[in-house]
Amino acid sequence: MRDELIYVLDLIGTLAFAISGIQTAADKRMDVFGAMMIGFITALGGGTVRDMLLGQQPVSWFHDLNYLLVVILAVGIVFAFAKHVRRLKQTLFLFDTIGIGVFTLIGVEKSLSLGISAPYAVIMGMVTSVVGGATRDVLCNDIPLILQKEVYATACLLGGGTYVFLNMMGVGLVVNSFVTMSTVIVIRLLSIKYHISLPRMRR
Amino acid sequence: MRDELIYVLDLIGTLAFAISGIQTAADKRMDVFGAMMIGFITALGGGTVRDMLLGQQPVSWFHDLNYLLVVILAVGIVFAFAKHVRRLKQTLFLFDTIGIGVFTLIGVEKSLSLGISAPYAVIMGMVTSVVGGATRDVLCNDIPLILQKEVYATACLLGGGTYVFLNMMGVGLVVNSFVTMSTVIVIRLLSIKYHISLPRMRR
Amino acid sequence: MRDELIYVLDLIGTLAFAISGIQTAADKRMDVFGAMMIGFITALGGGTVRDMLLGQQPVSWFHDLNYLLVVILAVGIVFAFAKHVRRLKQTLFLFDTIGIGVFTLIGVEKSLSLGISAPYAVIMGMVTSVVGGATRDVLCNDIPLILQKEVYATACLLGGGTYVFLNMMGVGLVVNSFVTMSTVIVIRLLSIKYHISLPRMRR
Repeated sequence: MRDELIYVLDLIGTLAFAISGIQTAADKRMDVFGAMMIGFITALGGGTVRDMLLGQQPVSWFHDLNYLLVVILAVGIVFAFAKHVRRLKQTLFLFDTIGIGVFTLIGVEKSLSLGISAPYAVIMGMVTSVVGGATRDVLCNDIPLILQKEVYATACLLGGGTYVFLNMMGVGLVVNSFVTMSTVIVIRLLSIKYHISLPRMRR
Repeated sequence: MRDELIYVLDLIGTLAFAISGIQTAADKRMDVFGAMMIGFITALGGGTVRDMLLGQQPVSWFHDLNYLLVVILAVGIVFAFAKHVRRLKQTLFLFDTIGIGVFTLIGVEKSLSLGISAPYAVIMGMVTSVVGGATRDVLCNDIPLILQKEVYATACLLGGGTYVFLNMMGVGLVVNSFVTMSTVIVIRLLSIKYHISLPRMRR
Repeated sequence: MRDELIYVLDLIGTLAFAISGIQTAADKRMDVFGAMMIGFITALGGGTVRDMLLGQQPVSWFHDLNYLLVVILAVGIVFAFAKHVRRLKQTLFLFDTIGIGVFTLIGVEKSLSLGISAPYAVIMGMVTSVVGGATRDVLCNDIPLILQKEVYATACLLGGGTYVFLNMMGVGLVVNSFVTMSTVIVIRLLSIKYHISLPRMRR
């Protein structure tokens, strides 16, 4: 039951990430195929790098065609309804935020189950969430947004830390999963609402 | 016999890809060594990423010094005959096109043999062909050409699809290999001749 | 005893690489977190890619929290003493040069122990040294310095070649390790002092 719900949330996050990648591709006037590639990489790049770092290959999406179908669906949506999709900015932002919540959870959980120590497991949760978007930006020849001002990597780290902490406290998996995802989501929403950002480095 | 021929075609493709990488490096005024690195990555990056995604490590070129020798040969050719090589544009284009044909075939075949499902095996054929060139462009600080207007990723996908289809129909390996490579090559040549391209995404 | 010394030198190199990454991030006005990510990738990216190419996963730093601590220390140092650190240019350059010496040694040694042939083992020594800095530059939207004029990849290749040669000659591990590291360091220092660089490719 928990696993099914997480799977559905994972697909929702994948859809939101794919749409964000495809929109960036459309802004750069790429063709349909290039957009699909960017969408795929944005949505699945984080989990892919995590699995390659951990030695879990063939990487996870090879076992499940639904991820591919979600990306194709995203291309269709953006291609057909480009203007309308832009107007759904808030809905997409919500989906995206759910996405980083569930990606963080999946990354931390998988790493811990493979015997990775807690600090690196937390980092792997963040890697699962941020690497896809960073790769999208590199391919589109931008400095990754994540490196500049987004506070959401921090939200992932704090969410991952929450998971590890509650896990050590003996909190059950179901409760812990939802607290972890909520932590990521709430921190991100609050940081946007109150314009919280990390201090910049001095030159 | 088939395997030997494919191996030779693979080396020809590797040479063409390496030369294309080294020429890009020369356009950016890199030194001999930087050019060699770009040549190596352009030629072998696709197979490398495919093997890392599939968990086939040490990746394939570690077992065969000929790939390294071909890249060194390519550096020598471009360094010594830069101007003349540019004039061989059509020959290089032909070699490059043979290259993507054989790279696609190798990628699909290897993925299927590892139990990857058909749609992802087709994608791995394309990954083998396009990732090297995309990495070359990222390292040279350009948006990957492949994402912008090249129809050749589509040629790879259609060629890979042909392989899977004929395989399911019970067509033998030798015939299938040559039909697959020919499909990739013919689609690419036709798309260039008739200026066929995919529709662009709308903003 | 040798292993402990190499471990200490590895951490010193990691610190120098992390600081160089974090300074580049500061020049781009990234926030503390982005700077930490760039520092981590600059310092540990080379070994990570080497381990992924060789199939040694989970990659090496997962087993040792000290690498993470060194990167966090580097962020603290640059954040607190930005101006002073810049003045320590020569010290940092020395640490960095020690770093590429020890990274080359570790890369060659590990590859040979996994049965990789000598030429590719030498290349893996160089990969360990240069990939981190190249990734830093790609993420910061610059053409990797290494591809443009740095002679230090060549220093790594010559150092790695020295290791392989002395190994074949039956020279013991301890002597060989220090000759290898010294070769890398001396070639780099000489090339800087006498402005030696590789010939550029012609257009």
